[in-house]
Amino acid sequence: MPRPELLETFPNPYADRSYEIHMTCHEFTSLCPLGGVESDASELALLKGGAPDFGIITITYVPAAKCIELKSLKLYLWSYRDAAVFYERAVNRILDDLSAAVEPRWIQVVGDFNVRGGIKSVITASRGTKA
Amino acid sequence: MPRPELLETFPNPYADRSYEIHMTCHEFTSLCPLGGVESDASELALLKGGAPDFGIITITYVPAAKCIELKSLKLYLWSYRDAAVFYERAVNRILDDLSAAVEPRWIQVVGDFNVRGGIKSVITASRGTKA
Amino acid sequence: MPRPELLETFPNPYADRSYEIHMTCHEFTSLCPLGGVESDASELALLKGGAPDFGIITITYVPAAKCIELKSLKLYLWSYRDAAVFYERAVNRILDDLSAAVEPRWIQVVGDFNVRGGIKSVITASRGTKA
Amino acid sequence: MPRPELLETFPNPYADRSYEIHMTCHEFTSLCPLGGVESDASELALLKGGAPDFGIITITYVPAAKCIELKSLKLYLWSYRDAAVFYERAVNRILDDLSAAVEPRWIQVVGDFNVRGGIKSVITASRGTKA
Amino acid sequence: MPRPELLETFPNPYADRSYEIHMTCHEFTSLCPLGGVESDASELALLKGGAPDFGIITITYVPAAKCIELKSLKLYLWSYRDAAVFYERAVNRILDDLSAAVEPRWIQVVGDFNVRGGIKSVITASRGTKA
Amino acid sequence: MPRPELLETFPNPYADRSYEIHMTCHEFTSLCPLGGVESDASELALLKGGAPDFGIITITYVPAAKCIELKSLKLYLWSYRDAAVFYERAVNRILDDLSAAVEPRWIQVVGDFNVRGGIKSVITASRGTKA
Amino acid sequence: MPRPELLETFPNPYADRSYEIHMTCHEFTSLCPLGGVESDASELALLKGGAPDFGIITITYVPAAKCIELKSLKLYLWSYRDAAVFYERAVNRILDDLSAAVEPRWIQVVGDFNVRGGIKSVITASRGTKA
Amino acid sequence: MPRPELLETFPNPYADRSYEIHMTCHEFTSLCPLGGVESDASELALLKGGAPDFGIITITYVPAAKCIELKSLKLYLWSYRDAAVFYERAVNRILDDLSAAVEPRWIQVVGDFNVRGGIKSVITASRGTKA
Amino acid sequence: MPRPELLETFPNPYADRSYEIHMTCHEFTSLCPLGGVESDASELALLKGGAPDFGIITITYVPAAKCIELKSLKLYLWSYRDAAVFYERAVNRILDDLSAAVEPRWIQVVGDFNVRGGIKSVITASRGTKA
Amino acid sequence: MPRPELLETFPNPYADRSYEIHMTCHEFTSLCPLGGVESDASELALLKGGAPDFGIITITYVPAAKCIELKSLKLYLWSYRDAAVFYERAVNRILDDLSAAVEPRWIQVVGDFNVRGGIKSVITASRGTKA
Repeated sequence: MPRPELLETFPNPYADRSYEIHMTCHEFTSLCPLGGVESDASELALLKGGAPDFGIITITYVPAAKCIELKSLKLYLWSYRDAAVFYERAVNRILDDLSAAVEPRWIQVVGDFNVRGGIKSVITASRGTKA
Repeated sequence: MPRPELLETFPNPYADRSYEIHMTCHEFTSLCPLGGVESDASELALLKGGAPDFGIITITYVPAAKCIELKSLKLYLWSYRDAAVFYERAVNRILDDLSAAVEPRWIQVVGDFNVRGGIKSVITASRGTKA
Repeated sequence: MPRPELLETFPNPYADRSYEIHMTCHEFTSLCPLGGVESDASELALLKGGAPDFGIITITYVPAAKCIELKSLKLYLWSYRDAAVFYERAVNRILDDLSAAVEPRWIQVVGDFNVRGGIKSVITASRGTKA
Repeated sequence: MPRPELLETFPNPYADRSYEIHMTCHEFTSLCPLGGVESDASELALLKGGAPDFGIITITYVPAAKCIELKSLKLYLWSYRDAAVFYERAVNRILDDLSAAVEPRWIQVVGDFNVRGGIKSVITASRGTKA
Repeated sequence: MPRPELLETFPNPYADRSYEIHMTCHEFTSLCPLGGVESDASELALLKGGAPDFGIITITYVPAAKCIELKSLKLYLWSYRDAAVFYERAVNRILDDLSAAVEPRWIQVVGDFNVRGGIKSVITASRGTKA
Repeated sequence: MPRPELLETFPNPYADRSYEIHMTCHEFTSLCPLGGVESDASELALLKGGAPDFGIITITYVPAAKCIELKSLKLYLWSYRDAAVFYERAVNRILDDLSAAVEPRWIQVVGDFNVRGGIKSVITASRGTKA
Repeated sequence: MPRPELLETFPNPYADRSYEIHMTCHEFTSLCPLGGVESDASELALLKGGAPDFGIITITYVPAAKCIELKSLKLYLWSYRDAAVFYERAVNRILDDLSAAVEPRWIQVVGDFNVRGGIKSVITASRGTKA
Repeated sequence: MPRPELLETFPNPYADRSYEIHMTCHEFTSLCPLGGVESDASELALLKGGAPDFGIITITYVPAAKCIELKSLKLYLWSYRDAAVFYERAVNRILDDLSAAVEPRWIQVVGDFNVRGGIKSVITASRGTKA
Repeated sequence: MPRPELLETFPNPYADRSYEIHMTCHEFTSLCPLGGVESDASELALLKGGAPDFGIITITYVPAAKCIELKSLKLYLWSYRDAAVFYERAVNRILDDLSAAVEPRWIQVVGDFNVRGGIKSVITASRGTKA
Repeated sequence: MPRPELLETFPNPYADRSYEIHMTCHEFTSLCPLGGVESDASELALLKGGAPDFGIITITYVPAAKCIELKSLKLYLWSYRDAAVFYERAVNRILDDLSAAVEPRWIQVVGDFNVRGGIKSVITASRGTKA
């Protein structure tokens, strides 16, 4: 399941100015909730129908006092690998976990998920004011 | 013919915030109205001139209390397969059916149809206020 | 020569709302005016120097009471095949002919013409207010 | 169901030489067999699970005495719209139907089908000798 | 109608060696035969149904004593603008006309025509031996 | 760990002829062996350094008596999700497992893996004779 | 050296409305100033170090009473072929020369120059008000 | 280590107007800080873990009295080759060094760095007012 | 005019083995012969109709004892800037000049020239045996 | 300078069959020899004119008893960062170093280097027989 405790930060070296950090992870994968119920999924569950989902997670933020440490972000995103979550929850949860860890001036998370049933989904959520 | 009763929704898990859901279906197909009259088309009609139309339907919306269930959206879009409709009607009808089912804060539907007679058509319609 | 009388319309099925129709014709061709004089061109003229021009015509409009009938638009655009016109006149004339036939809330015509003498030209003209 | 009787031919105007004709149809659609059983599908079947399939059919052949008439080929390919067939059968059946109608020196049919379950399929079959 | 008498040549400046000349014309246009009958087409015919065809003509040859003069090739290809010909005939006729004018060691003509009825066609014909 | 027992087949409907089936899975993921030792990986292992690998698996084969069932192939490829294997082993193992299940005339497996340490790897293995 | 006297204009056929003309020349070439001194360059200079520069010049303007004649623009741009000018001067000079000749409502010139020393440069300058 | 003293300028030849200069360097490389500590890196350090970073640096500015000399910019960017810096510091430092040297009306620096750990980073910082 | 005396070579550091060197120059420019007569062109000639030609020159060779020095190749290609030559002559002359200077085991020169009169030309010539 | 002693191998897990391993490194960088003399370069040298070179190294081989260890290959390629070598030497040296370390059945190295002086270079060398 998602493990926000993995997220680490470092002090923003240019905290006196407003600048933007944009990160893209092309290798995000989670599991589709079984029977519409979000849960922890085991290998057994995977083979019974909790199909893997794949997508691209894009994070853009204007740091305040802290920046997200890149390697810890990678580990945090890996922690979705065995989690069964809806797209809407994944994107909003990443937004909330990062907001809590980094307390940015503004942050946006976009989840661009692979085609399922012939339909592609992109979810976009943000917090704070960009200006 | 289009069957809006197939559309299902689920409660928006993050109804307290404004975020965007964007879906693209590359596999939309309907029939061209025979002699300019929109109607139900049978296989016979198909071969007499009610040529198939193909297009990409893009739906973007900001959910309020409800989200559209992805599989039911797929079934709803499939229900145009035997319907003979003009492009303008298809896009506006999808807009109205989804608006009635999901009651979003804002919604936009774009129909990007394949070349016919050397001319490509894209229809864009929306309801509500995005801000 | 351009024949605007070929243009036909049908009643806008959703005239109560503002939506956009966008059409692209990749197969527009006309003739370059001979000696800078716009005129009707015959096959003879063609071979003496009234070189063919090729381009993409893009039409975007917000319909009011009427929509342009797609097949009639195709025939109208075909009627430039033997006309010798400058790019600037072609685009503005299409704008005027369509405006007269459809009386849209807003309309824009873009002519994107192939390279001539190593230079590519794109002409954009519009009428009405989009908002 | 597929209707090979729709296929028409015309005499090859250059039957004394060996040349190649290559045709691509980006708008092929059929239905997925319900429960693995190939059959005729109705609208009801469609909504119960006989999901639509979409693909690109590419036909390349070296004509002998006859050429395939383009419009009749279009109608023949349309006749798969309500047929429930496996990819392997669709491609080989098109190969056989065209071979019977055109009796070419060599012919190849490729079916390039959209992603299903995260997997894309391309089937290639041919008859005769190209050289 | 096609006018092969427009084709001009110039002496191959390197006739003692075997090298390849490849030319592509993206602006080829002719007319679709009316009712399947190839003929001269007038503007009237054009508007009654002899629809314009568009394509890319690619010519590759290994010159012997003569090279094709580029401007005369342009004029020759323009002369198809008012001709109603099937794709198969256009490509083979260009092959024959160029072969007669240039007498090359080897020559290939490819006609890559725009989508009609949802189907794209490419015709390839050649004469002589490349090696 | 990889579970070849999941692979299912169906009788080749055109077993009397030689044709090709090509499948691409863009959503293959496995784990990098921890400390260079291939093993089963748990969530714990994942976070300690058994980093996920991502790649595209392409399978091309000429069927003999049997075809691979598409859905079972999907499940089989999913079974690598928790397996820690080197690229070389993954590709050759898929080749061997499919060969055993389908007994094809010829088969090729290509694994095209994402960049790691700034280096991209593609492994290609095959069995049988294509001709 | 640049020869603005080559620029010719013709009366804007639709001077009563505001529309946009956009031209792109992919074949602009000039010379790099020798030792940083802008000057006329001869063949000798070219070989001693006044290296050729290549770029794409894009001109966009809203005509008032006059339009730029396309062929004269081509000749004017050719006149930079033997001129040694800095990028900044070339773009601003073209802007000034065209402004003087055409007296447009608004005009923008963009020079997009090829990589030199591993660095690509794009210069953008404009005059007048677009609205 | 970064050597801002290498930066040279020349007087803006069109200082009386506001125009934009945009430069892209696709060949930026620096070193990843060892153990998270930014420092000078030697060859030894490189092989022990201070891995090379690669990226594209884009600089856009509106010059006031001075323009940056292109060759000196190249040398300045080369001086990061042996420096161990975080992405955030590299981009902001380049911004500060260029601001000090050129004193522009407005300047923006974007660092678009290659994928590391499956995550791509783009940093954007600016100073001054563009209008 | 072309100046082959500018070409310089250096000893092939791996003359004992057969390997391939491939070079592409995207910035080749010459002049179109005035009235079909190849000659030296002055600025005056340029403006009277000896239009500039632009193309991409690709050179591939297997060195024997000598390699072409890159900078001298650049200067040699620059020397065509003021030469009025046909495409066929330019490519074959470059082939001959390089063959004389480098005496390679095998060499191929391709000239890929920009569209003129709506037609693109690619000339390919080679000497020696590649084996 | 290049350090082949960094290269490590592991036993080929499928040594009994012939299969292909293809690796691409997009982040190769070395230095251009100063004054045409290949040597070790220091930071000082870098700024005096030993300009950095950038390229893509592609390695394809058919392993015999040993496979190249990916991380050691990365370190070996990094060791060119401070080496001043000609393109021809770099590619052939990588070929020789890898051949000595892996003793493959067949191996090919391609160096695709960035544009210098407007000319792009690609060097291809191989050893052994691909069978």
